[in-house]
Amino acid sequence: MASNLGAKLAVGLVHHPVLNKTGDVVTSSVTTLDVHDIARICRTYGVPEFFIITPLNAQKRLVERLTEHWIEGAGGGHNPHRKDALRSVKVVDSIDDMIDNFQFGDGKVSIITTGAKEPVGGGCATYSDARERLESMNRAVLLFGTGHGLAPSVMEMTDLRLEPIEGVGDFNHLPVRSAVAIILDRLLGYTIIGDKEK
Amino acid sequence: MASNLGAKLAVGLVHHPVLNKTGDVVTSSVTTLDVHDIARICRTYGVPEFFIITPLNAQKRLVERLTEHWIEGAGGGHNPHRKDALRSVKVVDSIDDMIDNFQFGDGKVSIITTGAKEPVGGGCATYSDARERLESMNRAVLLFGTGHGLAPSVMEMTDLRLEPIEGVGDFNHLPVRSAVAIILDRLLGYTIIGDKEK
Repeated sequence: MASNLGAKLAVGLVHHPVLNKTGDVVTSSVTTLDVHDIARICRTYGVPEFFIITPLNAQKRLVERLTEHWIEGAGGGHNPHRKDALRSVKVVDSIDDMIDNFQFGDGKVSIITTGAKEPVGGGCATYSDARERLESMNRAVLLFGTGHGLAPSVMEMTDLRLEPIEGVGDFNHLPVRSAVAIILDRLLGYTIIGDKEK
Repeated sequence: MASNLGAKLAVGLVHHPVLNKTGDVVTSSVTTLDVHDIARICRTYGVPEFFIITPLNAQKRLVERLTEHWIEGAGGGHNPHRKDALRSVKVVDSIDDMIDNFQFGDGKVSIITTGAKEPVGGGCATYSDARERLESMNRAVLLFGTGHGLAPSVMEMTDLRLEPIEGVGDFNHLPVRSAVAIILDRLLGYTIIGDKEK
């Protein structure tokens, strides 16, 4: 059985502000499959809220149409598990809006960030450390960047930065939905004793 | 850094024989996104070969067109990381064909299977046990079922069955591509000491 710490978390999938290939701050497009997959991952690990963060009205409407189809429309009858998972999805303009709309729990909302690379200067928590830190937090948002990752302005708000997922060699291009699966499993799904192999 | 044990593995995504919702043995359709995501996950964790297993010629041709576009066609110039990941993809008719086409390593090929539910009678290995067992194997295929999971005939071939991914509560509907990410991370990405929390 996974940890109950997921009940303190909300996952945020950030489409703005994120970086593009050349390092500019941009707004990325929503990938509808991310919405489906991450909702199911959150539901599996007991994370009650999953926020799609985008300031673009057309993109917000796209996500709302998708969730309406599965929750209220024809989709839910066809696939009740999908309906069940997508109930956690909310669409908001910004990370600040996400924090304002966080419904579960009480008290200060901490900000946990992720990224494919170790930041200059380091400072990332291992997953065992992060789990301990999460135990002492009231509640927290766990942010994932689309595109080429969260913008520096998000990093400046961070209370806890998780270490990147390292594979073998230098290939560093996991889909964000795979990173969410691995990171929720490391934080919530398994007892990690000790740090990663060096 | 992740373990080097991935070099002994080939991942197989099985579209036949798998179960459907009502428990019949069927051939499922290929989801092209599974091909992309799982290729990137395998590349991350150092798994050199990823087999799409389907007996249907139209489905095999679909996967071959996809990989040709990214490896030899216009896609590779646009996104070299995708090209890099998709080089590991092979399309075969059956699990037996996968074993015959396994190019890396020497010696006996062991069969490791996965599933969303504990089999009747148990017998699943924890991930720490499985990692130890993998160390003593020459090489192994790691099989994931699409649809509603691997058919019983595949389970009968199994040398090692991995325990299901357990979340919080009874929701048990991770996408197969998320399960591949989590399972490769548990086997290869992290030192797991001790078993999961009960």
